[in-house]
Amino acid sequence: MSGEEAFIAALRELAHDPAARGLIDDAAVLDGTGPMVATHDTMVEGVHWLAGQDPADVAWKLVAANLSDLAAKCCRPAGLLLSFMLGDAHWNSRFLAGLGDALAAFDALLLGGDTVSPPAPDAPKVIGLTALGRPIRDPPPSRADAQAGQSLWLTGRCGAALAGFEALRAGSSDDALTAPFRRPVPRLAAGQALAAAVCAMMDVSDGLLLDAQRMADASGVTIAIETRLVPVHPALARRKREAMAWGDDYELLFTLPRDAHCPVADDPVGATRIGTILPRGAHSLLLDGSPPPAGLSLGYRHGE
Amino acid sequence: MSGEEAFIAALRELAHDPAARGLIDDAAVLDGTGPMVATHDTMVEGVHWLAGQDPADVAWKLVAANLSDLAAKCCRPAGLLLSFMLGDAHWNSRFLAGLGDALAAFDALLLGGDTVSPPAPDAPKVIGLTALGRPIRDPPPSRADAQAGQSLWLTGRCGAALAGFEALRAGSSDDALTAPFRRPVPRLAAGQALAAAVCAMMDVSDGLLLDAQRMADASGVTIAIETRLVPVHPALARRKREAMAWGDDYELLFTLPRDAHCPVADDPVGATRIGTILPRGAHSLLLDGSPPPAGLSLGYRHGE
Repeated sequence: MSGEEAFIAALRELAHDPAARGLIDDAAVLDGTGPMVATHDTMVEGVHWLAGQDPADVAWKLVAANLSDLAAKCCRPAGLLLSFMLGDAHWNSRFLAGLGDALAAFDALLLGGDTVSPPAPDAPKVIGLTALGRPIRDPPPSRADAQAGQSLWLTGRCGAALAGFEALRAGSSDDALTAPFRRPVPRLAAGQALAAAVCAMMDVSDGLLLDAQRMADASGVTIAIETRLVPVHPALARRKREAMAWGDDYELLFTLPRDAHCPVADDPVGATRIGTILPRGAHSLLLDGSPPPAGLSLGYRHGE
Repeated sequence: MSGEEAFIAALRELAHDPAARGLIDDAAVLDGTGPMVATHDTMVEGVHWLAGQDPADVAWKLVAANLSDLAAKCCRPAGLLLSFMLGDAHWNSRFLAGLGDALAAFDALLLGGDTVSPPAPDAPKVIGLTALGRPIRDPPPSRADAQAGQSLWLTGRCGAALAGFEALRAGSSDDALTAPFRRPVPRLAAGQALAAAVCAMMDVSDGLLLDAQRMADASGVTIAIETRLVPVHPALARRKREAMAWGDDYELLFTLPRDAHCPVADDPVGATRIGTILPRGAHSLLLDGSPPPAGLSLGYRHGE
């Protein structure tokens, strides 16, 4: 068997849903009615992960990042298409292990995709994933639906991924500390529990401040965050601004009508009111009443 | 604007369907009911295209290859998600030009995707596309539905892409000759016209012989091709075996009940009966009654 054939044979074990057609057909065929949500993330070695990271964690994160977008749309996952660049046996097998872990953890189905050869044996790997989901409300929420008077909420807390990243970089073998960076958990249950209540919603993948600014711009409002209300990981207690500008936390940022009860506030993950939506002013984002200082990084921008 | 922001601003002009949500949201949201077909192709510079090729043609081919999979499923295109690796201004703008050409030519909608930075400025580019389609029959055909007694058909002819590739490599500026390689046309209309008639169907992307063998293996039958019946491009008249083992033609390979009329036989693209489906014998593929000679390449295999 060629490298591709061996990989696909192993992948087939993970793609057991009838919609995958045993990975032998040109395409996956999904049953069902109603709207479908579709999202895609691509990750590049050296850009989105470090060359030395466990490929199993890379696979997990690729799945988690995509499912986080579905969570923001109140979706149950309907299926995944994987774009995989073949490598050596270690890369291929560890990637498959992490992919299997993530599929099982999030009850997601692998339906198809493509495998390609690398342009050179040592070329940085590039992998991608398309996630399809069925929203449990129609239409699913948008990040463009924030309106003045609503309150701004965040699930979980900021900075867990940054704390995990720094611990991993320092050589920590504390799995619980590094897990939020290595194996983030998309807020699928919270996303669905919020379906009836939320106005605007998005996931926080590039940093709370940058993503809040994007929500404000998409909605044509100003978002005022009270930084003292933003929960952060204990390791970042003295570096809150940094935690708020660091990506990879995959929490949900959402708005609720003024004074509305938050249906997930008392869940184990929890949610916290961190600000207010204002009519559009001169600035899209206010931190404690003032625009962010010039030069403050709000989050991670690709291509810079 | 960063490179990514400028590219996405241009991309937004191509993504005008409401399902794309202006490319400002986490995901695309598709309306409608009934089954959905999903497929993904990834292309790598130096593997799937040559470094010197016009990025506009690369974009076109990425779209065409994916839509060809939808054609094999009797689909109308429902939407595309692009995974794009940013490069210099020439790469970005020429790619966008070809993408726009293809979207217009095939009446396809760009709905979303992801853009990423390259791991290094001179790293080979990796791009991907997910295509979603609505099949006009439920369930859409599979490549696993070939049965003994059916006849085997091919749209168009073999070798047009190979002739175009060789002309391009030789420096030809004859656009009509090189177009089948640079700008293949997926057989969307034929795929839909065949919906009521076909038994098994797939697209020919890796070579007629290899793909016919795959259909035979998926269906548990033997496929007998009469090579004298296979239409080939005039430039390959003396190299028919090679033309039948070369990919990129994106024709449709399908089976019909014995003696059935082929509804697209008289279309401009046309279709030709090239063989017969037999009960599974010792070999999955027979050429003029004999198994392919050992060592004959049947087509393009990735990862070898």
